[in-house]
Amino acid sequence: MIRPHSETDPPCTLDNMYVAVMDNIFLLALVTLLSVVQNVFFALKVEKECTGQHSKHHSAAFERLSCASRNCMDTYPTFLAVLWCAGICLSQAPAAFAGIIYLVVRQKYFVGYLGQTCQSIPGFLFGKRILFFLSLMCVVGIINHLMLTYGGSDYKEYIQTITKAASTLLLLP
Amino acid sequence: MIRPHSETDPPCTLDNMYVAVMDNIFLLALVTLLSVVQNVFFALKVEKECTGQHSKHHSAAFERLSCASRNCMDTYPTFLAVLWCAGICLSQAPAAFAGIIYLVVRQKYFVGYLGQTCQSIPGFLFGKRILFFLSLMCVVGIINHLMLTYGGSDYKEYIQTITKAASTLLLLP
Amino acid sequence: MIRPHSETDPPCTLDNMYVAVMDNIFLLALVTLLSVVQNVFFALKVEKECTGQHSKHHSAAFERLSCASRNCMDTYPTFLAVLWCAGICLSQAPAAFAGIIYLVVRQKYFVGYLGQTCQSIPGFLFGKRILFFLSLMCVVGIINHLMLTYGGSDYKEYIQTITKAASTLLLLP
Repeated sequence: MIRPHSETDPPCTLDNMYVAVMDNIFLLALVTLLSVVQNVFFALKVEKECTGQHSKHHSAAFERLSCASRNCMDTYPTFLAVLWCAGICLSQAPAAFAGIIYLVVRQKYFVGYLGQTCQSIPGFLFGKRILFFLSLMCVVGIINHLMLTYGGSDYKEYIQTITKAASTLLLLP
Repeated sequence: MIRPHSETDPPCTLDNMYVAVMDNIFLLALVTLLSVVQNVFFALKVEKECTGQHSKHHSAAFERLSCASRNCMDTYPTFLAVLWCAGICLSQAPAAFAGIIYLVVRQKYFVGYLGQTCQSIPGFLFGKRILFFLSLMCVVGIINHLMLTYGGSDYKEYIQTITKAASTLLLLP
Repeated sequence: MIRPHSETDPPCTLDNMYVAVMDNIFLLALVTLLSVVQNVFFALKVEKECTGQHSKHHSAAFERLSCASRNCMDTYPTFLAVLWCAGICLSQAPAAFAGIIYLVVRQKYFVGYLGQTCQSIPGFLFGKRILFFLSLMCVVGIINHLMLTYGGSDYKEYIQTITKAASTLLLLP
């Protein structure tokens, strides 16, 4: 599906290409950076908890904190993968928005971690709704690309508008 | 190694560029999405195992499941990294194919996890052959790029054909 | 910030675009590959330690090795994320250089792991300075992109020179 060069298309040089690529990912990079800062915060918190109470290493508080941190870390690559896939395949603004909400959910999960039995196990999953939304964005983006390649019809702008509207639904508690 | 514009090259606009980028990564995104679905499946399985038997949290079955899940999660970023590097540096179809085989191997490892002594430790590695194949693809892609830049010779099409043929060897048990 | 096509810009075809993309990421891919090799080395080391002393699985040496390996794995997605963000947003050479130093630090951490109380906990963070440097590169790259888009001024070349000089500071012990 290679379209002929028209007058309205911006001229394409390697410099413009780089700017265009950056335009499509800088929000994602920003969210990634925030998540990295949060990861470092979690790790420092666990470290501090350990050095703070040298005598009782495997106290309940430390085990909970360590478990919460591990759950966050276990889900982190999954989150990054869907965030970038959704952002690149469909549109970056809703993906970055969902990513920020995920970071808020994660912060709540970590700080207000009450050690409920069901959550204090390795492998516990939180933020399922946001991961589902990002996966859906990714699927829609891939289907749209296939339709564009084989069918010639491009619904991308409609889909992006719908996605932007739908992403606000994530704010519902 | 910037070649002059010839008549046979497709015209390059920012729109076409986006389509071309998507053409080169949509299979990788699809495999990533499948792996995310599998991750969520693993996490839900561990959660269910825990809530199912509230009384005996650290039963042998739970510990094995939790250990299998952790081994899968530990290798996940490594897998994603080589998958995308191999796909971008060389060619996406064989990389995505190897990725799907890796997911099948992982599913087998998790479901049929019998708790053999050697496997029930954190840090156990499975799917070594596939990771090796993807790493090799990545190395070949980088070497080919360097040869193209400094030597001017481009063997990419031959290499891609060989890689596609070689990727079927992964089906051997 | 789409600039008009000038004579000095290289012609942009889809082929050249691919070469330009590879030019901007091949060092990052190389560092990623090295880190994957290191991950596999860590996992094999843990496996070997386990099968070597079948009788005493949870010996102190094994627990320390397993813990060191887990700390390395926990930080790995964070490291990959900042490495690629820094490399794409600003410039790949200093990012790859910092990445290699990180790998050396990680190797030292793993091999010379003496099991100090503060380090033998899950969630311990090492290589903070390098992660901070890469994050800073990423922030500077995003700010520069926003200034280029909204202000029209492009300091990228100055920043890249400064970054290259600054990255040598990471060699200080």
